[in-house]
Amino acid sequence: MLTFNLDSKSKLPLYEQLYKYIRNELETGGIKAGEKLPSKRELASHLKISVVTVETAYAQLAAEGYISPKPGSGFYAEAVQYAQTPEIKNIYIPEKSPGKKYRYNFKTNMVDTKLFPFSTWAKLSREILSEQSPELLSACDPRGTYELRKEIALYLKSFRGIEVHPDQIIVGSGSEYLTGLIIQLLGRNLIYGIEDPGYTKIYKIFHGNCPDIRPISMDEDGADYNSVKRSGADAVHITPSHHFPLGSVMPVNRRIELLKWAYDSDGRYIIEDDYDSEFRFSGRPVPAMQSLDSRGRVIYINTFTKSLAPSMRISYMILPPELLEKFMKELGFYACTVPVFEQLTLAKFMERGHFERHIRRMKKLYRQRRDTMTEAINSCGLKNCIALSGLDSGLHVLMKVNNSMTESQLVTSAENEDVKVYGLSGYYSFSKKDVPESCIIAGYSGLNEEDITEGVARLEKAWLRN
Amino acid sequence: MLTFNLDSKSKLPLYEQLYKYIRNELETGGIKAGEKLPSKRELASHLKISVVTVETAYAQLAAEGYISPKPGSGFYAEAVQYAQTPEIKNIYIPEKSPGKKYRYNFKTNMVDTKLFPFSTWAKLSREILSEQSPELLSACDPRGTYELRKEIALYLKSFRGIEVHPDQIIVGSGSEYLTGLIIQLLGRNLIYGIEDPGYTKIYKIFHGNCPDIRPISMDEDGADYNSVKRSGADAVHITPSHHFPLGSVMPVNRRIELLKWAYDSDGRYIIEDDYDSEFRFSGRPVPAMQSLDSRGRVIYINTFTKSLAPSMRISYMILPPELLEKFMKELGFYACTVPVFEQLTLAKFMERGHFERHIRRMKKLYRQRRDTMTEAINSCGLKNCIALSGLDSGLHVLMKVNNSMTESQLVTSAENEDVKVYGLSGYYSFSKKDVPESCIIAGYSGLNEEDITEGVARLEKAWLRN
Repeated sequence: MLTFNLDSKSKLPLYEQLYKYIRNELETGGIKAGEKLPSKRELASHLKISVVTVETAYAQLAAEGYISPKPGSGFYAEAVQYAQTPEIKNIYIPEKSPGKKYRYNFKTNMVDTKLFPFSTWAKLSREILSEQSPELLSACDPRGTYELRKEIALYLKSFRGIEVHPDQIIVGSGSEYLTGLIIQLLGRNLIYGIEDPGYTKIYKIFHGNCPDIRPISMDEDGADYNSVKRSGADAVHITPSHHFPLGSVMPVNRRIELLKWAYDSDGRYIIEDDYDSEFRFSGRPVPAMQSLDSRGRVIYINTFTKSLAPSMRISYMILPPELLEKFMKELGFYACTVPVFEQLTLAKFMERGHFERHIRRMKKLYRQRRDTMTEAINSCGLKNCIALSGLDSGLHVLMKVNNSMTESQLVTSAENEDVKVYGLSGYYSFSKKDVPESCIIAGYSGLNEEDITEGVARLEKAWLRN
Repeated sequence: MLTFNLDSKSKLPLYEQLYKYIRNELETGGIKAGEKLPSKRELASHLKISVVTVETAYAQLAAEGYISPKPGSGFYAEAVQYAQTPEIKNIYIPEKSPGKKYRYNFKTNMVDTKLFPFSTWAKLSREILSEQSPELLSACDPRGTYELRKEIALYLKSFRGIEVHPDQIIVGSGSEYLTGLIIQLLGRNLIYGIEDPGYTKIYKIFHGNCPDIRPISMDEDGADYNSVKRSGADAVHITPSHHFPLGSVMPVNRRIELLKWAYDSDGRYIIEDDYDSEFRFSGRPVPAMQSLDSRGRVIYINTFTKSLAPSMRISYMILPPELLEKFMKELGFYACTVPVFEQLTLAKFMERGHFERHIRRMKKLYRQRRDTMTEAINSCGLKNCIALSGLDSGLHVLMKVNNSMTESQLVTSAENEDVKVYGLSGYYSFSKKDVPESCIIAGYSGLNEEDITEGVARLEKAWLRN
């Protein structure tokens, strides 16, 4: 007769302990296929447990196909075809922090979260939750809640000169996610043109999803019109407000030229990634291509990841009417990926002017850091061998270094001083043959002023030692 | 001389008003290409504004390429190639609520959010926010925060018998999103097998992303082994815990058969969607295929959308070691799509036992509703013409109605009584030729007991009138 120790202190109910025991016997051959199990009464009396407990365990085993009842005769073990206990799995654990850490890391796209208004955010969250509205828990419109889309539309009108209806706005958890949706919407078999150099993630997304992608080369005004034209692309992804990593701002005439390119043929689109247009330090931003477009060929995309916090996965895009209709029909089944809590909190944050104030404070902080960076360079020996550019917007500078070191020598010698800067060549995804010599990218948004100054002093040491 | 009305009450600064005015003149031909603009001093004195204001506006126009300085001579208008004001856009506004509303809607997959523990959630959110940790704002591991993955691993071990390392778990905003990632990971050119009938969204995701998808037919034990074998699929998406919409639970032997199918050839995978395994009403769930798999061929996926709230976009998947390594290498650049706030709040919610309690309460509520539903049917005239199935788990029942009405007659006659039920044929995405006759799906999770009783009474009237 089956015998095992019941553990009355276990968190598992008795029937489940019994179930597990018998299942294990079946799986390991302790009970063979076809063998009759003890009657419920017998087993209950043998183990000093109730008949109901045995009944429950048997019912469960029968439901799962381990045993089968024969009417009037009791339960019989089934042939359990696969009886092996899973092996101890050899789990791949990726390194937590691949690569060396540097004391002074001029990483790009860092967000300083020191100024994040925690208490305001907490207060607004509490307000939202205390309303206990069923809306908070129900799935929202696939485009996001109307409340947030309305605030985004108002913000775009006041600060970006873009007039759109909230219904054209689609909220999603990050620009990467939205870019994936755009590819699904336009079709993965279009030919996509991508800025080269450019944002490596964008390259990876298009490369991973679309069979035919082409490089768009850059000049001092941003994406090169002739390159776009020659590329054969149906749709191009560009960053006219602030090119990453070159820092160029596309003048209005180039924007108009590119729009004309889009109008020249049916089915051509421009994906305008306006990713850090909030951080323009002089004057107001050039009009977005979205607002220059009268024929529905621009898809505008922007994010709160850089303006609020990277952990806050909220981005949005604006679709022209025709694409919006297609989106709702073909992709409207996708639930909006941003939690409604977060959407409503952000909407209130914007409605009450906190977002505007936050951007202003961040901009001030970043401007100080940029000034510290340029002053440090211009007041030391590097002044004569560095041409700085990309200073008017964004959160990094481009340095053309003229000290007869190669890019990789510049990077390595900085590393030897515990400073991390980035070679421009790393942002070329298609081919490295057109990479300008000795250009370095340095982000200043993640370092305080003291560290920036010290970091630059060390760069001077590294690059001018000889 | 340029003349316009400055609006001192406007929110726009003066320089921006001036900038906009001149830009408009340039775009509409009021100032022609090549024309010289008034000097800053002249214009300032003419408009009674400061020279700095004019300077700022001119600088902005120059930066955007509308005007150009000639040294010693002032500013000249550029040829602005495209001068049309954007047309008023004709925006497509999708219907807010397409289709008629029904008083008694037996919709499937509804979550009753009445029992959502708002105050506990609010308290935990506040706790998290008050810690003000930088972790809250920084991007987390691409798989999600360790805190949440650890809690999910503990939950799976205690309640689902699945032993996994937190590092194998990947958190994402909804099963739809994760399914998209799985397709990217395995490759969209695999042949995918999908249950037919099945969850319509799953069909849409695979259909929209993969060129070759094949139907897997169902028998009373779930996905049919022979159909899987014959389909030629490389990977199959199945719901063994509770098939949607048929309600079947796959017995362990079928699970093992399907695992063997996967082992028979390299590169075969099973995507096990365990979507509402929490709501099993009798006994404990059959072991997940994930825990039966010893060779890393099962991708397990589950969601909090059904157990907490549809607005809370949190799902997760478990990858076998080999796929995890591939994921980190190829798709690890995708940021985790769930906000860190939400992840940490949920982790605390689970850690303190609230999740377990919540599931218990929900299960009780749903079980009452299921009982009300079956009692209402069994105590009225419908008893003799309805065969009910799918009662043991999930949140809907399948009714085979034997009153000589067709499926569409059943649906329409119910609609005439203000009751919405769903024909089984709607869940067949590939072909309607094998749809069983007169089968109706009715979800009970979104209706209270009174409404369920009245809804069933109306079904009796609709279906037994003649």
